[in-house]
Amino acid sequence: MTLPEKVPFRPGYELTIRRIYDQMTSQYPDSEIIYRDKVRYTYKEFGERVEKIAAALSTLGVKHLDKVATLDWNTHWHYELYMAVPMMSAVIHPVNIRLAPKEIAYVMNHAEDKVAVVNTDFTKLVQLLGDELKTVERYIFIGDDGHPDSIAGKPANNYEDLLREYGGKFEWPTVDENQVAGMGYTSGTTGLPKGVYHTHRQQVLHALMGLLHITAAPRVSLSKGEVFMHIVPMFHVWSWGLPYAVPMIGLKQVYPGKLDPIVMLDLITKEKVTYAAGVPTILYMLLTAPGSENYDLTGFKFVVGGGALPKGLAKLALARGIDVISGYGLTETAPILTIVHLPREKLDPEKELDLRTRTGIPVPLVDLIVADENCNPVPKDGKTMGEILVRTPWVAYEYYKDPERTESAWRCGWFHTGDIAVWYTDGFVKIVDRDKDVIKSGGEWISSLRLEDIISRHPGVGQVAVIAARHEKWGERPVALIVPKPGSSVAQEDVMGILKKAVEEGEIPKWWLPDKILIVDELPLTSVGKVNKRVLRGKYSDILSG
Amino acid sequence: MTLPEKVPFRPGYELTIRRIYDQMTSQYPDSEIIYRDKVRYTYKEFGERVEKIAAALSTLGVKHLDKVATLDWNTHWHYELYMAVPMMSAVIHPVNIRLAPKEIAYVMNHAEDKVAVVNTDFTKLVQLLGDELKTVERYIFIGDDGHPDSIAGKPANNYEDLLREYGGKFEWPTVDENQVAGMGYTSGTTGLPKGVYHTHRQQVLHALMGLLHITAAPRVSLSKGEVFMHIVPMFHVWSWGLPYAVPMIGLKQVYPGKLDPIVMLDLITKEKVTYAAGVPTILYMLLTAPGSENYDLTGFKFVVGGGALPKGLAKLALARGIDVISGYGLTETAPILTIVHLPREKLDPEKELDLRTRTGIPVPLVDLIVADENCNPVPKDGKTMGEILVRTPWVAYEYYKDPERTESAWRCGWFHTGDIAVWYTDGFVKIVDRDKDVIKSGGEWISSLRLEDIISRHPGVGQVAVIAARHEKWGERPVALIVPKPGSSVAQEDVMGILKKAVEEGEIPKWWLPDKILIVDELPLTSVGKVNKRVLRGKYSDILSG
Repeated sequence: MTLPEKVPFRPGYELTIRRIYDQMTSQYPDSEIIYRDKVRYTYKEFGERVEKIAAALSTLGVKHLDKVATLDWNTHWHYELYMAVPMMSAVIHPVNIRLAPKEIAYVMNHAEDKVAVVNTDFTKLVQLLGDELKTVERYIFIGDDGHPDSIAGKPANNYEDLLREYGGKFEWPTVDENQVAGMGYTSGTTGLPKGVYHTHRQQVLHALMGLLHITAAPRVSLSKGEVFMHIVPMFHVWSWGLPYAVPMIGLKQVYPGKLDPIVMLDLITKEKVTYAAGVPTILYMLLTAPGSENYDLTGFKFVVGGGALPKGLAKLALARGIDVISGYGLTETAPILTIVHLPREKLDPEKELDLRTRTGIPVPLVDLIVADENCNPVPKDGKTMGEILVRTPWVAYEYYKDPERTESAWRCGWFHTGDIAVWYTDGFVKIVDRDKDVIKSGGEWISSLRLEDIISRHPGVGQVAVIAARHEKWGERPVALIVPKPGSSVAQEDVMGILKKAVEEGEIPKWWLPDKILIVDELPLTSVGKVNKRVLRGKYSDILSG
Repeated sequence: MTLPEKVPFRPGYELTIRRIYDQMTSQYPDSEIIYRDKVRYTYKEFGERVEKIAAALSTLGVKHLDKVATLDWNTHWHYELYMAVPMMSAVIHPVNIRLAPKEIAYVMNHAEDKVAVVNTDFTKLVQLLGDELKTVERYIFIGDDGHPDSIAGKPANNYEDLLREYGGKFEWPTVDENQVAGMGYTSGTTGLPKGVYHTHRQQVLHALMGLLHITAAPRVSLSKGEVFMHIVPMFHVWSWGLPYAVPMIGLKQVYPGKLDPIVMLDLITKEKVTYAAGVPTILYMLLTAPGSENYDLTGFKFVVGGGALPKGLAKLALARGIDVISGYGLTETAPILTIVHLPREKLDPEKELDLRTRTGIPVPLVDLIVADENCNPVPKDGKTMGEILVRTPWVAYEYYKDPERTESAWRCGWFHTGDIAVWYTDGFVKIVDRDKDVIKSGGEWISSLRLEDIISRHPGVGQVAVIAARHEKWGERPVALIVPKPGSSVAQEDVMGILKKAVEEGEIPKWWLPDKILIVDELPLTSVGKVNKRVLRGKYSDILSG
C-alpha cells in the first residue's frame, strides 16, 4: 500500500484569489470594466493596474497580513484593491461608510487597519476622526477632488500618483489558501459591529458556487456574454462576492460608483446591462425614482438579497419587465446561502410570485437546516418555524477577538443565523422573521415578514414595516408602519380589509391582525439600506400601552 | 496582530464526496435515478442503499484506503459504489473492462485491488484471470445472472444479498479532503496503462467547475430541471465526473447500462432526456444505428469529448436537431479541461460549425497554455502549434509508482498533455493533433485532425482516420482511411477533389495532401471507443514504401 495518507498539491493549484486574477486576465483580456461614464478599460489593463498598485503598496511597506482599509463606493479603484491587496498577502477591509463616525473608528481600530484608501468623498470624515484612528499609519486618496497632505500627522498620497511613481512589475508572493484575504463587520443592528474574516479559499469557493447557482437557474439564469452591474455596495460583504465571481466567465462589468438611481438607469441603458443584484431598497429606488418610467427595463434580471423581497415590490418589478428573484445570506457567510430557482415551466402568476419571494434553495456546498433550539430539524411542512443553521466551506471561522459570541453562534457545530424560517420538501426555505424582529404574542410567534407581504398587496403601499409593540396582556402585539408610494394615498381601513381577507382565506390566523396601522412619511434605514427596525421599536414600542 | 497564519476549518466544511451525497439526498430527495427499464428510485432511496452497501463492505473488512475495483457498465450499482466507497474512506478503482484481459490483470495488480465488484457479464473474464489477480481477496457480483461461489479460491457474494444481510445504519468516518477517493488508468495507446489517483477535493472541485462551465454556456447550457443520461462509460475517467456533478442541482439521471444505441434512443424518448456527453463514436452510433431515423432528437444537447469532433459528424448531429459542442480532457486531469462556449447570438452556419468543433475554452480554475518545448507560450494566432500544458486543482499529483514518467510529464511545473494545439485571442483552443499521432513530413508538422475534418465534408464519409506512413524521402507522409456511411459509397478522386479545393482556398498547404486514400470496411477502436491509430499505423505504416 503506497498511496499517501494526504496528497500534497503542486504550486499553482491552491484556491487563492490569484487563480481568479490569472484566469480573467489571460482568458478574457478584452472584456470590459466600466466606472460610471468616467473610466472604461479591459481586463488586461485592469490586470496591469492591479500589479502596479500592489508594487506601490509594497514599496510603502504593506506586508504579509497587514490590513488595508478602504472607504469607497463601487469604483474600479475599489475593484483593483479587491484583487491587489489579498494577492500581495495582505488583508483588505472594506469599511462600511454608512456606519456612524464613532462606529467607523471602532471597526478600524478593532481591525488594526494600517493603511486607509479613502475616496475624496470621505476626506472630511477621516479628518473628523483624526487621532481616533489609532492604527492607521498612512492614507491614500482616490477620486477627482484634491486631498490634504496629511491626516492627524500621518502622510497622505494620491493613488494615481503612486501608480505612476512606484507602479511596476510585481512578483506575487505564494499565498496559502487558508490565509485571511479580507475582513468585514456586521452592520450591527444590536450592539457593536462584530468582525469576521474570510480566507482566500472561502472567497474563491463562495464566488464560484454562487455563480454556479445562478448560472444553473432556469429562466433567470446568468450566462456568458451578459453584462453585470455591481449594485451591492462593495463595503457590504464583498458586494456578495460578485466582483470575484463574474470575471470567471469574462463578463463585462459596470461599476456605478455612489448608488444614484438615475446614474444606474442611464448605465443600464447605455451599457446594455442584463443582470444585477441588490437590496430591496435599491430596487425600489430604481423603480420609483422620478423619471424611472422613461427607462425600458424589460428583460433585466435582478436578485434581491440583504432583506426579504416583499410581494408588492416583486409585482412592481415584474410589471416593468424585470425578472426578479430573491436570495439570502449574511456577513458571516460571505454571504450567499440561498437563491430562488424557478421551475422550467411558467406557473400561474400567484404561485410564481410566491416562489420568487421565498428565501430560496441552498447553493451547492451549503448544508442548511431549519431547526429547533436543540439543533434538531423541524418538519419540512412549510409551517413549523425554526432557526436557519448552516455549515458551508465559506462560513467564517469565528468572530474576531470575541470568543464568547463565537461559541454562542457556532453551538452544536452549526452556525446560527438568527433567522426564523419554515422549509419545504422541494428544497425551498422561507424566512418568516429575524430572530430579534419576531413578534411574540401570548407566547406564540407572529411573522412580521408575512404581514408585510400581505400589506404590500395594497397598490398604494410603497414601503411597510411591521414591528412588535409592548402589550399588557399579550406581551407583544404587531403594529404596521406604511409609507405610501409617491403620489398615492393609503387608507388604514383598506389595509385592514386586505389583511382580513387573508384571514378569511386561511392565509394567516386572526390573532395576527395588527393592533395598529400607521401611515408615515418615511422609514429609517440601516447603514446597508435595510429598514431599521431597532429604531422603529425604540420609537413605537410603547404606542399600545401609552 | 492576532489573525491566524492559517485559518482551520470546522468539521463538515471539507471538500469531500460526502458533501455531494448529503446535499443530493437532503435537498433533492425526490429526484429520480433510472437504470434502463429495470430500476427507478429516488435520491432518498439511493442514499439509503449507499449507506447499506457501505455498512456491508465495512462488515466484510474494507478499511481506510483499501481499493475496491469495479468491473461494470453504467448502472445504478456502479453509481452507489461511486459514492459509498470513497465516503467510507476506501478507494474506488473502476476498471476499464475494454482492455485486454492481460492488461486488466496488470492494472488490478498494480492498483492492489482488495475487493472486486463484478457485473455478471464479466464472470467469465474473472474466472479466466483467476490466480493472476494476486491482490483480490473477495468478489461481489451484481447483475441478474447467477454467479459462482468462489473465484480461484476467493469467496464471492451477491451485492443484493449483502445489502439485505449486512445493510444497516453506517457511521460515516471523517475523511480528509486530500485523501485519495479513486484510481484510474490511462487507456494506454502506447505501452502499459499508467495509474493515476484523485482526491476527494479534486473530485468535488472538478465536478463543480465542469458543471459551472456547462451551466454558464450560452444556448447549449445545462440547467435545473433537465434530464441527464450518463453515456460516458463509468469505467472511463469517472464518467467525466458527471455522476458527481449533476446531482448537485438535483437532475433526474438515466443510467443506460451497457451502451446499446437503440436502448439509449428508447431511454432518451421515454425519459425525456435533454442532455448527455460522450465520445464521437457513440454519437455516431446514435445517429446511424438502423432505426435511429425513427427517433426525434430535436433539442437534445450533447457534449463530445474523448476525441476530436469532426465537422462531418457535427453536421450530421445538427441536421437531426442535436445541439452539439465539443469538450476535452484526459485521464490525468479527471478529465475536464475545456468545453466550447458558443456566442449568445447565432453566427452563420460555417462559423458556428467551426466554433462547435474547436476544443473549447478552459473551465474555471483551469490554467492552460499552448507552449513550445521550453514551456514558453506560443503566439495566440490560431496558427502556431504548441503543446497544451495545464495547471488546475484537479490534475493528478503523479503517476502511481512511476516517478520517471511523473517527472517527465510535470516538467517546468506544468502537466504536459501531449496534445498539439493552436490557440486564439478569444480564449479558444483547438487541438490539431496528438503528440504521438502527429505526421512529420520533411521536419514539418501535418495535422491529421485537420485533414480528417476536411475529408469528413464528403457526404458519404462515415468515419475517417489520417495516419503517418513511413516515406523514404520525407520521413512520414499522410495516408487517409475512410469507412463510408451505411448505404453510401465514396470515390477516392472525389475525396481528393475536396482536399484540393481546400488547398486552393488556402485552408491547408499543398504538401499536406495525403499520398494515399484507402476505402476500408471498418476502423479499429481503442477500449474507450476512439479510433486506434496505433493499430492502424502497425498495419499501414509501410504502405508507401512497400
